[in-house]
Amino acid sequence: MKAEIVSIGTELLIGQIVNTNATYLAQQLADYGIDLQHVITVGDNPQRIQQALQDAWNRSDLVICTGGLGPTPDDLTAEQIAEFLKLPMELYPEALEHIRRRFELRGRTMSQSDPKQAYFPKGAKLIPDPPGTATSFYVNQDGKTILAFPGPPKELESAWKTWAKLVLENHQEGAIVSHLLKFIGMPEAVVAERVSDLLNGTNPTVAPYVGNWEVHLRVTAKAKTRDEAEVLLAPVIAEIKKRLAKHYFGQDDETLPQVVGQLLLKRGHTLATAESCTGGLIASRLTDISGSSRYFFAGFIPYATEKKTAILGIPADLIETHGVVSAKVAEALANHARDKAETNWGLGITGYAGASEGIPPEAVGTVFIGVATPDKTYTEEFHFGGMTRESVKWAASQSALAMLWHHLSQA
Amino acid sequence: MKAEIVSIGTELLIGQIVNTNATYLAQQLADYGIDLQHVITVGDNPQRIQQALQDAWNRSDLVICTGGLGPTPDDLTAEQIAEFLKLPMELYPEALEHIRRRFELRGRTMSQSDPKQAYFPKGAKLIPDPPGTATSFYVNQDGKTILAFPGPPKELESAWKTWAKLVLENHQEGAIVSHLLKFIGMPEAVVAERVSDLLNGTNPTVAPYVGNWEVHLRVTAKAKTRDEAEVLLAPVIAEIKKRLAKHYFGQDDETLPQVVGQLLLKRGHTLATAESCTGGLIASRLTDISGSSRYFFAGFIPYATEKKTAILGIPADLIETHGVVSAKVAEALANHARDKAETNWGLGITGYAGASEGIPPEAVGTVFIGVATPDKTYTEEFHFGGMTRESVKWAASQSALAMLWHHLSQA
Repeated sequence: MKAEIVSIGTELLIGQIVNTNATYLAQQLADYGIDLQHVITVGDNPQRIQQALQDAWNRSDLVICTGGLGPTPDDLTAEQIAEFLKLPMELYPEALEHIRRRFELRGRTMSQSDPKQAYFPKGAKLIPDPPGTATSFYVNQDGKTILAFPGPPKELESAWKTWAKLVLENHQEGAIVSHLLKFIGMPEAVVAERVSDLLNGTNPTVAPYVGNWEVHLRVTAKAKTRDEAEVLLAPVIAEIKKRLAKHYFGQDDETLPQVVGQLLLKRGHTLATAESCTGGLIASRLTDISGSSRYFFAGFIPYATEKKTAILGIPADLIETHGVVSAKVAEALANHARDKAETNWGLGITGYAGASEGIPPEAVGTVFIGVATPDKTYTEEFHFGGMTRESVKWAASQSALAMLWHHLSQA
Repeated sequence: MKAEIVSIGTELLIGQIVNTNATYLAQQLADYGIDLQHVITVGDNPQRIQQALQDAWNRSDLVICTGGLGPTPDDLTAEQIAEFLKLPMELYPEALEHIRRRFELRGRTMSQSDPKQAYFPKGAKLIPDPPGTATSFYVNQDGKTILAFPGPPKELESAWKTWAKLVLENHQEGAIVSHLLKFIGMPEAVVAERVSDLLNGTNPTVAPYVGNWEVHLRVTAKAKTRDEAEVLLAPVIAEIKKRLAKHYFGQDDETLPQVVGQLLLKRGHTLATAESCTGGLIASRLTDISGSSRYFFAGFIPYATEKKTAILGIPADLIETHGVVSAKVAEALANHARDKAETNWGLGITGYAGASEGIPPEAVGTVFIGVATPDKTYTEEFHFGGMTRESVKWAASQSALAMLWHHLSQA
């Protein structure tokens, strides 16, 4: 099957946003064995949208439109698809009802333009359970399909997953199954080196991807059924996990905060954090996980130096002797967080996330992390040089969660 | 002048890399007043590259190719441009010499395939001082131009800047200037309605965009110079700000945490937070801003109910009487955070971010926010229904920052 993406939106052509939707869909199409040959980006312009639809329709079996499903006058995608396929626009009562309910849930009333999102080309099939007010849809004609997704990435990804499950997985010639293996604490090049002999395989294939301060290996197999594909995958996955055992933390949708939580739950243990340079990012990531209140009890963000003493009781002379960014202060933050919140585990972090008055430029990116286990406290020093403030915070949060995960994984 | 980008590379079509080069060039073209109407992405396939060049050549005055200038057999761009323009390929001695010198500098010897990068379509002009081994070039024919840049973003950006200075700045017809106005606490459709008469303008143009729980209006003007464009923009921007004064918080790169910080600095005031349902997200966003340690002193995340009493001293009977998710508890969190951290302002937040045992489903998304100003504490109730856990956290953080901003803006 040949596919083409038509990305619609003037904001893409003036460089306001990056077309990450095309990248996401490209990965997904590759996973399903669908050949993506073109991505074309056009603005909110009827004539150019028509031309792009025509070119894509001539060349492909599956045309995927992204963007332009919002309520404002420059959202043209549904109408333009209707015009291209010579279909009238029609009100879909279930979509209108969905919009009404969403507004109700948020205690708002619908504006005059909102019902626009309930009109679709006649005969279009709606993709169920949209997470926003925009509903994705698809139209089949002459053995080809046009799909339309909204621009916000979370809405697009949710709709793609639903559609892939509903439609794609029932019409596949055979099955393509793919798993993502996730690693922490090792650069992409080294991960790739350790499995270099496996990267040339054809079924399964193994491909490395750089995540956000973690590394992923995508392992994909084709077979007649999903079960047969899983059988092909199993030995390769087992071999990779064996070679990179110390760095492998999870598979597919699993995240680092989630596996940390699972290990705490398994022990029946609880955790508190004391974050200086990450400013609450680690606690926020831990509490992104449903059920985290069972093990994450409290966090402290003693951002100003004197608040480390006032709020957590870290001796002022310890800070003065060793400096606020030091292994000793990271250790004290971890211990005091654990003791003050009466938890089993404590995490402490201090560092220079960005340039600031009085800090030598070469010190920016220096971070100390302390992990207080029930018996002993460990500290490590990291250097994240030449990065933005937000990237240092993220890298530090990944390293802290990795340390926690490592110590929680010990028997 | 009309431009088109032809992005060449199979890695783009399998989702291995994001096309940030197109975004960079789009921004640059907009700044130079060049109208970018299409971006087309194709793989390393001669036939599809020829078709893309033909389409782009028919529609545009300037065709910008990115990628495919490396030394390996799948790097086809220079040859394909030569074939399209019916020009022979020719060895450029100065490019060969450049490659030789670069290898020398790194103490390496040239591989057999490296001289490939010294061949160009006959008559092509090379862009001087390439930072890598690949040299960018352009060919003029029939009053049109084809430009070719290598794929690595730093090499592309360096070559673009050199070319823009050498060629573009001597042939400019005018400038396009664009500003982003940012609004909070009002849905996109309502913002668009309030300025609906301005959305039909042609110079300046006004276009609405949905941000992540905020709304943006992009206002763009064309004129002979940047200054003249700003003169055209000023009255429209003033009018929009007047109509949406209560919701306008910033322009261009300004963010909500940043404007909150600026208002605190202006007053010489300080802030502490006590977050339950957002789990540290608000503190993390505030500390993303450089210099935030001057006004953000401390954060508390008393996630477990009993920690609200143990850590912040909120009376257990107040929590029992009103419920942990209540206006009274939000108010107490704000007051206790402010008093415990000895700051001027306090922010408190409590709510149900996601489904959990013992919580009625309709309560998920209910959030209470308290803002303790130096004199008085205000609370508000929000409902973010039908959203994921992470989206509720984000929406709650936006609403909390908006409340803070609102009270800080009062004279």
